[in-house]
Amino acid sequence: MHPRPRLGELGLGTGKKARLHRILHDHGLCNGTAFFLPYDQGLEHGPRDFFANPGAADPRYIVQLAIEGGFNGIVLQVGLAEKFYWDYAGEVPLVLKLNGKTEIPSDAEALSPVHATVEDAVRLGADAVGYTLYVGTPVQDKDFEQYRKVRADAHRLGMPLIVWAYPRGSAIEAKGGRDSFYAVDYAARTAAELGADVVKVNYPHPEKTEGVPVNYAGQFSVQEAMDSVVRSAGRTLLLVSGGGRAGDEAMLDKARSAMEAGATGLIFGRNVWQRERAESLRFVSALRDILAKHPSE
Amino acid sequence: MHPRPRLGELGLGTGKKARLHRILHDHGLCNGTAFFLPYDQGLEHGPRDFFANPGAADPRYIVQLAIEGGFNGIVLQVGLAEKFYWDYAGEVPLVLKLNGKTEIPSDAEALSPVHATVEDAVRLGADAVGYTLYVGTPVQDKDFEQYRKVRADAHRLGMPLIVWAYPRGSAIEAKGGRDSFYAVDYAARTAAELGADVVKVNYPHPEKTEGVPVNYAGQFSVQEAMDSVVRSAGRTLLLVSGGGRAGDEAMLDKARSAMEAGATGLIFGRNVWQRERAESLRFVSALRDILAKHPSE
Amino acid sequence: MHPRPRLGELGLGTGKKARLHRILHDHGLCNGTAFFLPYDQGLEHGPRDFFANPGAADPRYIVQLAIEGGFNGIVLQVGLAEKFYWDYAGEVPLVLKLNGKTEIPSDAEALSPVHATVEDAVRLGADAVGYTLYVGTPVQDKDFEQYRKVRADAHRLGMPLIVWAYPRGSAIEAKGGRDSFYAVDYAARTAAELGADVVKVNYPHPEKTEGVPVNYAGQFSVQEAMDSVVRSAGRTLLLVSGGGRAGDEAMLDKARSAMEAGATGLIFGRNVWQRERAESLRFVSALRDILAKHPSE
Amino acid sequence: MHPRPRLGELGLGTGKKARLHRILHDHGLCNGTAFFLPYDQGLEHGPRDFFANPGAADPRYIVQLAIEGGFNGIVLQVGLAEKFYWDYAGEVPLVLKLNGKTEIPSDAEALSPVHATVEDAVRLGADAVGYTLYVGTPVQDKDFEQYRKVRADAHRLGMPLIVWAYPRGSAIEAKGGRDSFYAVDYAARTAAELGADVVKVNYPHPEKTEGVPVNYAGQFSVQEAMDSVVRSAGRTLLLVSGGGRAGDEAMLDKARSAMEAGATGLIFGRNVWQRERAESLRFVSALRDILAKHPSE
Amino acid sequence: MHPRPRLGELGLGTGKKARLHRILHDHGLCNGTAFFLPYDQGLEHGPRDFFANPGAADPRYIVQLAIEGGFNGIVLQVGLAEKFYWDYAGEVPLVLKLNGKTEIPSDAEALSPVHATVEDAVRLGADAVGYTLYVGTPVQDKDFEQYRKVRADAHRLGMPLIVWAYPRGSAIEAKGGRDSFYAVDYAARTAAELGADVVKVNYPHPEKTEGVPVNYAGQFSVQEAMDSVVRSAGRTLLLVSGGGRAGDEAMLDKARSAMEAGATGLIFGRNVWQRERAESLRFVSALRDILAKHPSE
Repeated sequence: MHPRPRLGELGLGTGKKARLHRILHDHGLCNGTAFFLPYDQGLEHGPRDFFANPGAADPRYIVQLAIEGGFNGIVLQVGLAEKFYWDYAGEVPLVLKLNGKTEIPSDAEALSPVHATVEDAVRLGADAVGYTLYVGTPVQDKDFEQYRKVRADAHRLGMPLIVWAYPRGSAIEAKGGRDSFYAVDYAARTAAELGADVVKVNYPHPEKTEGVPVNYAGQFSVQEAMDSVVRSAGRTLLLVSGGGRAGDEAMLDKARSAMEAGATGLIFGRNVWQRERAESLRFVSALRDILAKHPSE
Repeated sequence: MHPRPRLGELGLGTGKKARLHRILHDHGLCNGTAFFLPYDQGLEHGPRDFFANPGAADPRYIVQLAIEGGFNGIVLQVGLAEKFYWDYAGEVPLVLKLNGKTEIPSDAEALSPVHATVEDAVRLGADAVGYTLYVGTPVQDKDFEQYRKVRADAHRLGMPLIVWAYPRGSAIEAKGGRDSFYAVDYAARTAAELGADVVKVNYPHPEKTEGVPVNYAGQFSVQEAMDSVVRSAGRTLLLVSGGGRAGDEAMLDKARSAMEAGATGLIFGRNVWQRERAESLRFVSALRDILAKHPSE
Repeated sequence: MHPRPRLGELGLGTGKKARLHRILHDHGLCNGTAFFLPYDQGLEHGPRDFFANPGAADPRYIVQLAIEGGFNGIVLQVGLAEKFYWDYAGEVPLVLKLNGKTEIPSDAEALSPVHATVEDAVRLGADAVGYTLYVGTPVQDKDFEQYRKVRADAHRLGMPLIVWAYPRGSAIEAKGGRDSFYAVDYAARTAAELGADVVKVNYPHPEKTEGVPVNYAGQFSVQEAMDSVVRSAGRTLLLVSGGGRAGDEAMLDKARSAMEAGATGLIFGRNVWQRERAESLRFVSALRDILAKHPSE
Repeated sequence: MHPRPRLGELGLGTGKKARLHRILHDHGLCNGTAFFLPYDQGLEHGPRDFFANPGAADPRYIVQLAIEGGFNGIVLQVGLAEKFYWDYAGEVPLVLKLNGKTEIPSDAEALSPVHATVEDAVRLGADAVGYTLYVGTPVQDKDFEQYRKVRADAHRLGMPLIVWAYPRGSAIEAKGGRDSFYAVDYAARTAAELGADVVKVNYPHPEKTEGVPVNYAGQFSVQEAMDSVVRSAGRTLLLVSGGGRAGDEAMLDKARSAMEAGATGLIFGRNVWQRERAESLRFVSALRDILAKHPSE
Repeated sequence: MHPRPRLGELGLGTGKKARLHRILHDHGLCNGTAFFLPYDQGLEHGPRDFFANPGAADPRYIVQLAIEGGFNGIVLQVGLAEKFYWDYAGEVPLVLKLNGKTEIPSDAEALSPVHATVEDAVRLGADAVGYTLYVGTPVQDKDFEQYRKVRADAHRLGMPLIVWAYPRGSAIEAKGGRDSFYAVDYAARTAAELGADVVKVNYPHPEKTEGVPVNYAGQFSVQEAMDSVVRSAGRTLLLVSGGGRAGDEAMLDKARSAMEAGATGLIFGRNVWQRERAESLRFVSALRDILAKHPSE
């Protein structure tokens, strides 16, 4: 297991340190771990994600769930943040997602266009911003150009930057796919190289070896892969994404394995709110039990 | 039926609230509903839209119709607003449409280029601006980039932002088409996620299921679809578009169904002015009767 | 016949009104009509346009012709304006053309790139600026973006904006061609919608109906088409372009028909200067006789 | 023969006139003619151009040759200007070339990207700037956009602008090729229309008529073609380029013909320095004899 | 052998000279040679480069190696520089790499997007910045545009600019490949023409002659090629890159040959740290012995 990096050794300026401290030590379990509730699926996938639990279409339902479930933060796009966060401002930290896209056009040249700014985040009292970087996309020049401005603004305004590091596009699909060990490991490192404070990755699948570089074509256990991904993130705090809805036990295993490897926390959306409310809270409680075993400074 | 959002709970700044209040409570039925007369078809479709009623080619005719018909606002592009609105300034609110395009080139990679600014709107005394977002277009990066600037300027200047949320482009045509329930529902949600104050959508067609995601492939009544679309818009006020000329009874049904679902109002152009003036006013009167039954705060 | 719009009802700011007044009432026939001499063909077609009358390759020859012929203005690109207009500054109004292109590359995705600014026009003492808008081009997003800046600068600096509204590109060629009634009518309207003060169009050909929308596929006389185009321009003053060299009687008919329809004037280049000087002046004189019959306020 | 334009009638501002005067009357033959030594081939063609005379790879060798040969100016890219011109600053005027490219990628959509600014030229004490315009390239919109900024900056800072007017790209290749009479004549005119103070062209080949417009398909002598090109440049001073290495007599004929036609001077690089030093100076001396016969004000 | 250029004759401003002096004379052998440790492979190739020596995945390991090995500088991307350099700031000079990319998408239209700025380098106490220029890429216009801004900022802030001059893209692959003598020689010259202070090149392979221009198709020894490359760089200091892992003797030969030719130093990454630490230091020591024999002013 990789030692979890301490907040004091991340090279952060005052504003970033203050805000990350608020997220990690004043909310959730207040033990240095993080548990975020992402709610950008209405843009990324459309309202179809709410059919399993129609109440979840209402942002109020979700913010209340984040508060009651004891999350460290909720992730919203600017429209919902402006129209729904005011009622609960200060009760749960806000992560403003600065880019996003619909699922309608092809992902072959994936790009998540920016539609909000770090200044919007400051204005709305957010404690972090989120940016989706499509690692390996054929249009990485556009992606990096957008990202550069976000990174610079986040630095200038002392706003922690969480990077959704998602391998995407035709090129990575031809080299093992978006969730191969190679892809996820590379994505974590890319976020670290480019200056993310926190990186969100999907769980790596070391068994997907077709087309990956030779180093990744060997036999790796899931835990070895996860360990490597955390190591690749270095001093960039790592969050594991829940992804689409799956069985609870599988999700809890994933969470345990990630925390064992040195992840700082979890970011689970659909697995949390695509079910009835009481069930959501029970599942959240089980995940919190895991986080409680991995306190960090 | 979804409860219609009240003006006071929309998270609006002072300027946006003042201007929306003026539109919704000082004009039209003054009961919190909205009835807009859009007049951007001369650019979008060309003068062919005026052949059915040649008088409608003259912007003066249209502005006078908007005043006499008791509309809450008239939608103009900057050229017509500069050259024709002065005579009637203050008599009916102006919505300045900031982007638009001709129908000549292909819609496969649809984009509605910006040709006017929020500052133009302020200068011309407009009470709102309009922006066409082609939801799902393959060039959504360009669309979002344009939109971001409009949204930021509208926020800065306190100008309500009405988004024409139109699914368009080759990708959505391959996934059920531009007016499927999936497409319209997604469009409403996209506008809300991206920070529109008001969204204009076309009426959803739940029977168009070929190519749509599985959740939308079931059997839905027209009213169920409309309810869902209003729910997806959340605290973004929803307007239903009339679209091309159709039978009056069908249009009145559409209007009733939308208002039942919780829409804030209607935006009907060709169905209003592609007929002789007295007939236009009779039809407008019938629509106002419907709006009168759905007052809002 | 459409009543010719009066200068006082065009919604113009002070600077634009002062400059248009100077062009329309202090030069040419001083009767509110306009007769412009365009001289951008050296860029648009190259020196081949001067082979019929080699003297016309010299900008001095042309400016002198404009003065002696009693034109309301001469149209130049920035290079010729800087190097040749000084000698005659104030004797004939200058229209600075802000964009242009060579005829060498394909017109399938036509765009006329901007190479001068409204500030250049102010500096050179111009009384108007010209912009070529390729209505319906597949790259209309680039065209509108360029145009937006020109329009905004022209507004800010009180400089009248003359739009060369030219249907162009592969899409319009597939829908009846660049000089169909549909294309020219749409072009006039587009310029009006986008805020042109003056629009220059080619003469419409109602007999070209292959591929045009159904409304334009009927039988229209040339005069009906011209009337419609003027109506589509609304309060945007309309100039009819001479186009390539043709027979004098045909040109005079064209001019008469346009003025009857309510056009404000003519903009004839090659038909004027692609002949020996005395002949040019005789032809100009015949055109002035037509304009003299259509005074305007 | 076309009368060579006098410096006083070129419509120049003070800074441009001062600098051009310094080039034309204080250096070289001090008789109003110009003889430039271009040295951008290391970028345009790579070091292979120096294999014939390896000493020429050293910029010091070239600057010394320019001084000893009595040139009116030397043309350098910013890197060589910064690192080698200091030693000789003031001894020979510097023309800073602002754009350039390698020969490696295809020329089908030729564009010469800008990599230095007019302000760099001012800082380095240059007396003119150079810009390559690829007349007729399919990406002329990008080219004109770059050029517009250069022209505006050159105007603002009083820096003479020399345009390398080079027909290039797939479109001109299909219409007679880059050095047809049509292409070169058009290129000269384009530079004049767009505001160049000086234009550099290649020698026209009137015998290349395949694919050219009908006006250029006739029989023209080389001198007639050259005369026409100078006429097309108007008040933009014309320089004839040496091009690739050729026989000395052919080059001297070319120079004589150009000066007879009214050119202001020559810009010869490879023909000068792709030979041993003493030979270079002998050839330069012969060219100077020609220039001496064509003094200008 | 080409005389190594002295620091005093490079045309440098004060800031650039101060920082280069610090790198060349206050660190490493303090004899005017340079030995850099590049560590951008985590972004360029992903974590697979660390499988041979997993400890090398940790930036601390690498910085400590640079200090202990007596390097003149370490090259980092902004993320690692922000989070890991603070602990060792001042102990070894930092070169901040301003652009980079993943290996995932195709290199046919290679571009290394900028994601950090010269101001970031100043803020982090760096003594130089690095920029990868893909010489000959079909998108050289984008590359030069990025580069121009970096060069201008580096000039303004007195920051030495090291250019990774890498032939790349489909065009050069068709003309002899990225490491032919032609390609490397051209790359060195391009960096010099464009104003690099230092250029990093790969070792040329004169035996790769298929598709190269005729001048390079002859028989050249490796040393002749290297001599030529150094001559092409002129007053731009030249560093030879180690490239992928190869045999030690081959690498030492390469280093000797480069220094004989007049190179200023070496930049070796994978050959240094893709092995156990003690071995790394032994190899570094052998390379330092070579550098010690080539002191420079």
